[in-house]
Amino acid sequence: MRLARGAHRVRVAGFRFAGVRAGFKERGPDVALIVAEAPAVAAGVFTLNRAPAAPVRVARRRVAGGRLAAVLVHAGSANACTGAEGLRTAEVSTAQAARLLGCHPAEVAPCATGRIGVQVDRPRLLRGVRLAVAALSPDGLPAAAQAITTTDAFPKTAVRRLRLGGRPVTVAALGKGGGMIAPQMATLLVFVVTDARVAAAAARRTLRDAVAPTLNAITVDGDTSTNDTVLLLAGGAAGNRTVTARSPDHLRLTRAVTEVLGEIARLVVLDGEGSTRVVEIVVRGARSSADARRVARAMGDSMLCKAAFHGGDPNWGRFVMAAGNAGVPIDQTRVDVTIGGVAVARRGRPLPGALGRARRRMRAREVTIALDLHLGRGEGRILAADLSVAYVRFNAEYTT
Amino acid sequence: MRLARGAHRVRVAGFRFAGVRAGFKERGPDVALIVAEAPAVAAGVFTLNRAPAAPVRVARRRVAGGRLAAVLVHAGSANACTGAEGLRTAEVSTAQAARLLGCHPAEVAPCATGRIGVQVDRPRLLRGVRLAVAALSPDGLPAAAQAITTTDAFPKTAVRRLRLGGRPVTVAALGKGGGMIAPQMATLLVFVVTDARVAAAAARRTLRDAVAPTLNAITVDGDTSTNDTVLLLAGGAAGNRTVTARSPDHLRLTRAVTEVLGEIARLVVLDGEGSTRVVEIVVRGARSSADARRVARAMGDSMLCKAAFHGGDPNWGRFVMAAGNAGVPIDQTRVDVTIGGVAVARRGRPLPGALGRARRRMRAREVTIALDLHLGRGEGRILAADLSVAYVRFNAEYTT
Repeated sequence: MRLARGAHRVRVAGFRFAGVRAGFKERGPDVALIVAEAPAVAAGVFTLNRAPAAPVRVARRRVAGGRLAAVLVHAGSANACTGAEGLRTAEVSTAQAARLLGCHPAEVAPCATGRIGVQVDRPRLLRGVRLAVAALSPDGLPAAAQAITTTDAFPKTAVRRLRLGGRPVTVAALGKGGGMIAPQMATLLVFVVTDARVAAAAARRTLRDAVAPTLNAITVDGDTSTNDTVLLLAGGAAGNRTVTARSPDHLRLTRAVTEVLGEIARLVVLDGEGSTRVVEIVVRGARSSADARRVARAMGDSMLCKAAFHGGDPNWGRFVMAAGNAGVPIDQTRVDVTIGGVAVARRGRPLPGALGRARRRMRAREVTIALDLHLGRGEGRILAADLSVAYVRFNAEYTT
Repeated sequence: MRLARGAHRVRVAGFRFAGVRAGFKERGPDVALIVAEAPAVAAGVFTLNRAPAAPVRVARRRVAGGRLAAVLVHAGSANACTGAEGLRTAEVSTAQAARLLGCHPAEVAPCATGRIGVQVDRPRLLRGVRLAVAALSPDGLPAAAQAITTTDAFPKTAVRRLRLGGRPVTVAALGKGGGMIAPQMATLLVFVVTDARVAAAAARRTLRDAVAPTLNAITVDGDTSTNDTVLLLAGGAAGNRTVTARSPDHLRLTRAVTEVLGEIARLVVLDGEGSTRVVEIVVRGARSSADARRVARAMGDSMLCKAAFHGGDPNWGRFVMAAGNAGVPIDQTRVDVTIGGVAVARRGRPLPGALGRARRRMRAREVTIALDLHLGRGEGRILAADLSVAYVRFNAEYTT
């Protein structure tokens, strides 16, 4: 597994970053600030959980305006299940940031991750905002990436450089652990910043297209957080001709954003709570791509499949069982199963003698499990973490 | 927890039972036979998994005829993911039972539980059939209940006696572990036998109504097996006036069947793989009962909630998170949460000082968690097992 630490030395023209300690976490920085020189074109993707956290509700509204000057993040207290007081916390803290930065409050997006069901210590957060504004630096991206982590074992960053309209452009991303992977710690948070000049509609399309095959195709524990937030900020300091939707430059930009989000997604699964194995599940031959994705997700979310991943057990019957529970048509007499390139079942029946080789492949740090349903041309994939004893320990022994 | 071992001494007039060892499991009896004196009125409910096992496919067809003379069960090899050869095994083995019993093959329902993805040793099964027919006895119910278990810690039986039309009637049930709880061991199997005389339509309605709030309202690990089968056999030896749909006797019979299935359901969760705690989740105030059941199930299936159950952690924010992922409308500003009778959140906000008492309640062997959504009058409930380290160990360390 390649750890994408490249962004640790990266600047993105027109952006400053900070990561400071306010005291929400037991140790380390826990308030991050991302600031654009001038309000950047912005696009966002948010949790589908029907109980979204206060910062999500505020940020969603503000991103809809199409411009953001800053993103304020605190880690250790998710501001979820906090009612009207939580909304007020999000508004007050971003208002203070706006005042100190000289921008409009509606241009500051709040994000949070951490415990849910407790009120945020507001004076602590306001102190963090002051410290963060004072610490802003073009070289602050690594500090910000560190500050947004909770129980992540390492900060997650990725970077791509490309040329758009002849001008060099940087696309950088910082993210934190996915799923509700940690004790009361909710949240996948990912921020993509680029100096490219991009039209608002193109930015929205880029983010939507890039999230679908990357961050929306992973699962650690199947629980969608109340706080998931992905933001793209395009500042425009690169001076390229504005990227418009469906242009060749737009395709290039979308590819770069998809690549950085793909790296973050992979790192999130690798660093999933208790995760010991990354399993790529590929489903082919479904009636549609949507069907294929549902089957892949059913396998990736099944506790029994995840336990088999953990044990390195080529238990293909469980995979077919999970596929049978995906709610889409399958014909078990047509299903082929391949584990790490070893065919273990064809047309729904076991292939004698294959399990020994498949078991060795299953025990790798990363393995691909492929199902061909032979019903059509739909294809989908997902990256899944395994289910380990450490996951249960961590999430059971933690107490509120 | 009351262990319903009452049926161990029970006879059901007109039925004989056997449990014998053929050698599918490492130890103990593993082939069971339930035989009605004359073909009994029969009703069945089967897995919704889209990859149903061969016995399910055969039994479903045969139950549709409305009459069964016998049920043949083997444990240790599920005959799932076995293709045409698996279907042939189900047909050949039930044909042999029919020949030895002197009934029609279409009146014998096959059931199986155990490893999936391997072919059943057919000569072994046929030997088991011969032994079982030879061992049939009116007192064989406990042996049959033992024979259908796989990794169950104890056999599961329940019995009710009631009067229908002035005649004493017995309703007895035998069942085995629910969910795909064991290493490759699929299956919830439950058989209800009664000497009541019941019309076919009434029997079907009784079973459907009794399964919904009992066996269809439990979850061990969220994985629906390929082999789930529930059968009701009504022999009629009690000599009561035939129970017809919607009659007062029908209500009484349905209540008795619901009670025995409720006991089996509770025992199945109690004996879920690695289970240490039974959590009753009650959702009230949903827009509909279907919504309430979906919310309850989302909570019962959430890995993070199940880990919190295991840790005895009154982590109500996780419960709201899971409710928010159920795919039905909720308004977090209206949600009340109660744990073991202790109110921990009202209108979506934490109630200070309640967690200590709630934690003590959470640590009981059985606890009720109640959500009131305050959106309507819909109510639903589910019994859920927790997620323990033992579950992961058991299902990960087992290898194919």
